[in-house]
Amino acid sequence: MALLSPSRRLRRTVFSEGVEAAGVKAYTVYNHMLLPTVFRSVQEDYHHLKEAVQVWDVAVERQIELRGPDAGRLMQMLTPRDLRGMQLGQCFYVPIVDETGGMLNDPVAVKLGEDHWWVSIADSDLLFWVKGIANGWRLDVLVDEPDINPLAIQGPKSDDLMAAVFGDAVRNIRFFRYQWLEFEGVPMVVARSGYSKQGGFEIYVPGGPVAMKLWNALFEAGKSMDVHAGCPNLIERIEGGLLSYGNDMTDDNTPHECGLGKFCDTHDALACIGRDALLRVAKEGPVQQIRAIEIIGAPVGLCDRWWPVLANGKRVGRVSSAAYSPDFKTNVSVGMVRMTHWDDGTQVQVDTPDGIRDAIVHEKFWI
Amino acid sequence: MALLSPSRRLRRTVFSEGVEAAGVKAYTVYNHMLLPTVFRSVQEDYHHLKEAVQVWDVAVERQIELRGPDAGRLMQMLTPRDLRGMQLGQCFYVPIVDETGGMLNDPVAVKLGEDHWWVSIADSDLLFWVKGIANGWRLDVLVDEPDINPLAIQGPKSDDLMAAVFGDAVRNIRFFRYQWLEFEGVPMVVARSGYSKQGGFEIYVPGGPVAMKLWNALFEAGKSMDVHAGCPNLIERIEGGLLSYGNDMTDDNTPHECGLGKFCDTHDALACIGRDALLRVAKEGPVQQIRAIEIIGAPVGLCDRWWPVLANGKRVGRVSSAAYSPDFKTNVSVGMVRMTHWDDGTQVQVDTPDGIRDAIVHEKFWI
Repeated sequence: MALLSPSRRLRRTVFSEGVEAAGVKAYTVYNHMLLPTVFRSVQEDYHHLKEAVQVWDVAVERQIELRGPDAGRLMQMLTPRDLRGMQLGQCFYVPIVDETGGMLNDPVAVKLGEDHWWVSIADSDLLFWVKGIANGWRLDVLVDEPDINPLAIQGPKSDDLMAAVFGDAVRNIRFFRYQWLEFEGVPMVVARSGYSKQGGFEIYVPGGPVAMKLWNALFEAGKSMDVHAGCPNLIERIEGGLLSYGNDMTDDNTPHECGLGKFCDTHDALACIGRDALLRVAKEGPVQQIRAIEIIGAPVGLCDRWWPVLANGKRVGRVSSAAYSPDFKTNVSVGMVRMTHWDDGTQVQVDTPDGIRDAIVHEKFWI
Repeated sequence: MALLSPSRRLRRTVFSEGVEAAGVKAYTVYNHMLLPTVFRSVQEDYHHLKEAVQVWDVAVERQIELRGPDAGRLMQMLTPRDLRGMQLGQCFYVPIVDETGGMLNDPVAVKLGEDHWWVSIADSDLLFWVKGIANGWRLDVLVDEPDINPLAIQGPKSDDLMAAVFGDAVRNIRFFRYQWLEFEGVPMVVARSGYSKQGGFEIYVPGGPVAMKLWNALFEAGKSMDVHAGCPNLIERIEGGLLSYGNDMTDDNTPHECGLGKFCDTHDALACIGRDALLRVAKEGPVQQIRAIEIIGAPVGLCDRWWPVLANGKRVGRVSSAAYSPDFKTNVSVGMVRMTHWDDGTQVQVDTPDGIRDAIVHEKFWI
């Protein structure tokens, strides 16, 4: 792996001190901040995530705050997902698209009030788009990045760990719902969500001394549960089909290509900026789409560029994330495949740096 | 230094193959891409940059292309710098501000035609702001990221190296001007500019096979000039007072705080979005400003977070970039200092990870 030069521009988080003490071994950079990628090893972290409970510094999921009379209108302009039925206490996964229907981010929207929203973002400066739209359309809304720092608790023992710190109320939080709960007198949004398929929570932690106090309290309370510091796990998230913006999709892709058509609406009243551009693809479907791709043979290396997917020597797609899965004993990967070859079971080839490999397209991921 | 996990999301550039072959030792991440930071050592690269000539992969300086009848109008909405006198063939350093006057980026604008511009950006997704403004104001303009990849030639022998590849025409290009020149039949913008004070050029290279052909041709032609692969050098850019967006300034800062007041105009007709917000600061001046700060004593470590600047135990500013300068035999740094302590020669202290150090505020950088 390459070395990463430190600088203030690659910002530390409010939890970095805890991450370092926990022995972080490598990082990526996400929203101009440090995101841990490995603690013990990607494989060891993977097994532990599926068996116990981990605390993840995902403060890189920066928030965009919309506040004011036009906040709800602006939120609907940003996404093709129909927000009319969304209630207070809910979180929605919302594709964000530009006027061409291209994906700008795939965040989670948190509805705090009719005129108060947080958008918990993936890796792009979505704040700039939201501020530009608010300014150009002269909306009556304040748009800013508040000092809110998500901390994820993930793994099968998440409920027990969270209950030990926040009380049994957490057990009643439903999937993609949140409650305001207190830690040391500081109210925080606690949502049942997170970037794994092992269950768990995301805590929206305000900055200041309370952040590391909470970090330490979770590790203290979790001793008997084998709690460890963790991070989004490459293998587990590919098995589960959790997409990564910038890896698996870019602003060249529509939500429908990303398999997110179910989060898109095109009714006449929908105020989304990308609505018109998405009408045709919503009706006729995309010509390429995200698929699970099993790459046959020995473990593949790290996927740091798109690997072409081939059929009869012709390019029919690309793999964007790949890893060897110890549990499924095969190479799991995420790819974008043209409709001629996207049916379940289609045999293709993948051009990896180690040579051309046989591969099988699957309609479902490994979970 | 920490390890950087590879992924497609941290994009390679069209020159990465050459960078790797040249023995890159470390990277940073810039606009979601890999930017080299060290080849031999920061010190060795520094001395060589001042003596010979280097080829830098700065493809991370992505372009935003504005094209269409409203391109010029949009460009002026983005920046408080008066663009009326700007001619074809010129490049302008343009602070970009939001409606509050906060800096969103500090790029170089390249005027290709009255209705055709490139904006060569620092580290933020400025494309999102520009697209949002264009959409909200319903401007008749296309905004996109073209496949244009800057390659910088920097150092005192830059003219000789460039002349050997592009012909003697390059010698007549004036500072912050460009010409269209051909390499292997492919026309490219060649500007006299770059992120060092050692002189040189930036070539705006189209993607495709021509990119690595040009890289190789430069190294072939430069053998007798001791050409080496290089990169923006931390020490040299601090000595020269070249600011780094995300390190030395953020969207909390006005251009005036960054010492960029000379690039700001506030005449009545100026269409810049941030004009009104900047009126007061333009008239009264900022309350804090970028300064050169000399930190006394042994070489300081790497500055990966803001170091408080203190006077009588009170915080009066912060250092954002620092390094030991072999040529000036002192620690050079960039800081933001309140007006009470920004006069030349003011003695302050800097709270570094190695302890509190005496320091001196300077009005001029080391060049």
